Amino acid sequence: MKIAILGTGMVGRTLAERLAGLGHDVQIGTRSPQETMARTSPDPNMGTPGFATWHKDHANVKLVRFEEAARHGELVMNATAGRATIEILSGIGQEALAGKTLIDISNSLDFSKGMPPTLLVSNTDSLGEAVQRLLPKTRVVKTLNTVNAELMVRPASLAKGEHTLFLCGDDEGAKAQVRTLLCEGFGWTDVIDLGGMRAARGTEMYLPLWISLWGALKTPSFSIRVVR
Amino acid sequence: MKIAILGTGMVGRTLAERLAGLGHDVQIGTRSPQETMARTSPDPNMGTPGFATWHKDHANVKLVRFEEAARHGELVMNATAGRATIEILSGIGQEALAGKTLIDISNSLDFSKGMPPTLLVSNTDSLGEAVQRLLPKTRVVKTLNTVNAELMVRPASLAKGEHTLFLCGDDEGAKAQVRTLLCEGFGWTDVIDLGGMRAARGTEMYLPLWISLWGALKTPSFSIRVVR
Repeated sequence: MKIAILGTGMVGRTLAERLAGLGHDVQIGTRSPQETMARTSPDPNMGTPGFATWHKDHANVKLVRFEEAARHGELVMNATAGRATIEILSGIGQEALAGKTLIDISNSLDFSKGMPPTLLVSNTDSLGEAVQRLLPKTRVVKTLNTVNAELMVRPASLAKGEHTLFLCGDDEGAKAQVRTLLCEGFGWTDVIDLGGMRAARGTEMYLPLWISLWGALKTPSFSIRVVR
Repeated sequence: MKIAILGTGMVGRTLAERLAGLGHDVQIGTRSPQETMARTSPDPNMGTPGFATWHKDHANVKLVRFEEAARHGELVMNATAGRATIEILSGIGQEALAGKTLIDISNSLDFSKGMPPTLLVSNTDSLGEAVQRLLPKTRVVKTLNTVNAELMVRPASLAKGEHTLFLCGDDEGAKAQVRTLLCEGFGWTDVIDLGGMRAARGTEMYLPLWISLWGALKTPSFSIRVVR
């Protein structure tokens, strides 16, 4: 399947590597491929290796402009930083994304006021809802935003995969399509449908607890299992 | 131990019944004992039986005014509705609660704009922090606010108790005291200390996800296990 990943950070790279490994035709989108490829030293904030370093070992993933990636993808995954998501999707425009399923993984973390971050959007709105409003002809599904990148694509690497993922969105067909990718592609065994896109508020507002748990457990490699 | 429960709703009653059963000397506080005892028919919103009906079977729990309960308790548990918590604690006043440990279970759910509720306080503040600011001489511990009343006091009734509770607060001694009550009293086996009271933002902002899960699972009798 032709898949577009928007965003070249750790999440975008991890998704691209895993999906390409599953045999998908993956393109990864960025603002300026030239500038992204020029980054050979690690990110000063996150310590992530420069994209060019990563790309040497993943030359099967084509790096293109955001809009070109969006046109390539039958399925599009938004892995951009939450603070930039709306601007980037606005730049791509409705037409390139119309009729497609878009998996929104973004969280509206605001690091500008120090650590731990707060949220730019919360309580009475969510990024998932904002993305769906911006792209009314696109079938948006919110998922994967509650675990770290490695667990997103290899859930079985923790506790034999016995933990839970959430999804929500307004289109039942798109949710079924995404569920298949999550379960048959990545190996998730417990995916709970929370309902319409409004439920994205809940999964996005879970982030402050996730960040506290990261601090308490001294690792981001944890997840939650819904026990019922 | 002398324990005060503030609030006569389902949470307050469940805590009172369990703690009295464990041999504690429990008083339950309300605005007006006379008015509370006059309620013999079920609550029109929640369907909870009138307090007088419940009290017939729990006469060992004395019903008194909020302030009187607070003075009685060596340990105080706030089980009032989040929208009323600050007003009620202000009414009791700092002096009656000074030097005591107060367990804050409240959530700032706002049902006034319809279902599902939003939060009155979130993101850059929390009810737990507001309570601690209001009562600087009281050692506030936030916990129990992420599960329903029955699971708070009988965690082993679900999945052999293999699920997780969170606590946070600024006083290490008070957190150790509360942990003992939770584990040795109620039977919790996995209690994660999230750090200072600021972490209450995370557990309070988990509520919208909890409410979505209630809808998806058709029962409030679920919990989450932190898998690591």
